[in-house]
Amino acid sequence: MTATRTHPEVAPHESKAKLLNAALYVIRARGYSATRVEDICESAGLTKGSFFHHFKGKEDLAVAAAEHFSAMADGLFAQAPYRSLPDPVERVLGYVDFRKAILLGDLPEFTCLLGTMVQEAYETHPRIREACDRYIASHAHAVAADIAAAMAARGLHPNLNIDWTAESLAFYTQAVIQGSFVLAKAQRNAAVSADCLDHLRRYLEQLFRPSQSQTGPSPSA
Amino acid sequence: MTATRTHPEVAPHESKAKLLNAALYVIRARGYSATRVEDICESAGLTKGSFFHHFKGKEDLAVAAAEHFSAMADGLFAQAPYRSLPDPVERVLGYVDFRKAILLGDLPEFTCLLGTMVQEAYETHPRIREACDRYIASHAHAVAADIAAAMAARGLHPNLNIDWTAESLAFYTQAVIQGSFVLAKAQRNAAVSADCLDHLRRYLEQLFRPSQSQTGPSPSA
Repeated sequence: MTATRTHPEVAPHESKAKLLNAALYVIRARGYSATRVEDICESAGLTKGSFFHHFKGKEDLAVAAAEHFSAMADGLFAQAPYRSLPDPVERVLGYVDFRKAILLGDLPEFTCLLGTMVQEAYETHPRIREACDRYIASHAHAVAADIAAAMAARGLHPNLNIDWTAESLAFYTQAVIQGSFVLAKAQRNAAVSADCLDHLRRYLEQLFRPSQSQTGPSPSA
Repeated sequence: MTATRTHPEVAPHESKAKLLNAALYVIRARGYSATRVEDICESAGLTKGSFFHHFKGKEDLAVAAAEHFSAMADGLFAQAPYRSLPDPVERVLGYVDFRKAILLGDLPEFTCLLGTMVQEAYETHPRIREACDRYIASHAHAVAADIAAAMAARGLHPNLNIDWTAESLAFYTQAVIQGSFVLAKAQRNAAVSADCLDHLRRYLEQLFRPSQSQTGPSPSA
């Protein structure tokens, strides 16, 4: 449990990080069920002894990997340039632009660990489903905070002049992103994800267009 | 190979249909990799002998199940009431309303076999990925035909007064639907899928709003 002696090769906290990073890549490439503990160990360059020192089993690793993935994403988005834009509408649009800008590398590098795992494990692995739900919701709530500020800036009020909420729109942004990854996997190409983000941006531009806040959602109906 | 003698219990074509229908439910509940041939046989009430009479193995079944799922969906959408609406814009909106109306039953009953399988198998099972890609694209192209007619009806022309295409919008509708299923699985609740379809409908209403076709996409910019 305590690292009284640090081997020159891998310190305990380093081996845990290596296993978590291996899980991020291998599960996103093969799915949760098809991934074996041996695959994780091989990818991390560590033994099964090391694995079971840190994790009770594959499900335990998956839950920890979901938290690790979420923490990495939080750090990435917190430091993104769009965060410092003063206009909340620009921050909402900047979020979409940033999501488009990070569609880089191979599919297992930019697709979502949470969406991948929950798609197959939602019914059979309640702990994994709960972790994925928690971290997807946490990210959506962060997006919803900017959306709520953008709504206030444009004078948009649910049940008054619009029929949607900041939370529902934030989850919609996540649905578009998750679904765009499914299509990118089918097509083995991130271009469709970029196209989907363009449509999402267009929708957000329409919702937050200055003229709409004065005339309501259906000016010419 | 030939059904010279039909047992009173299950004729060969009936046993194949039972196996395919079992695959639809079991794979949507457990994912592709976690599903065993034994699970399919148990759910269908048939023996492994019957399974291997019809399919070479699990991957072969998955590819056939993708085709079966697609054919069932084609039949469902072809007979849907919105298909007979004369205005193509109303057919596009009617498609979204219909997708919302069929969010019925448990998650394995209304979620998508293709999105579920490709999410985990895209890298490791090329035949499954190709089948999922083919049938998702086939459905998107059917939606794109109505979208193209709606664009013509509203005088919307790519590169002239809009910066999107019928095909990109059709794939966007599929991304929203696929992503909404991922969120529904995370939340164990179809309500978020319905919310996402409301946002999609609002976007389509905006794109095909009559006033926009006369003034272009950014009348007040």
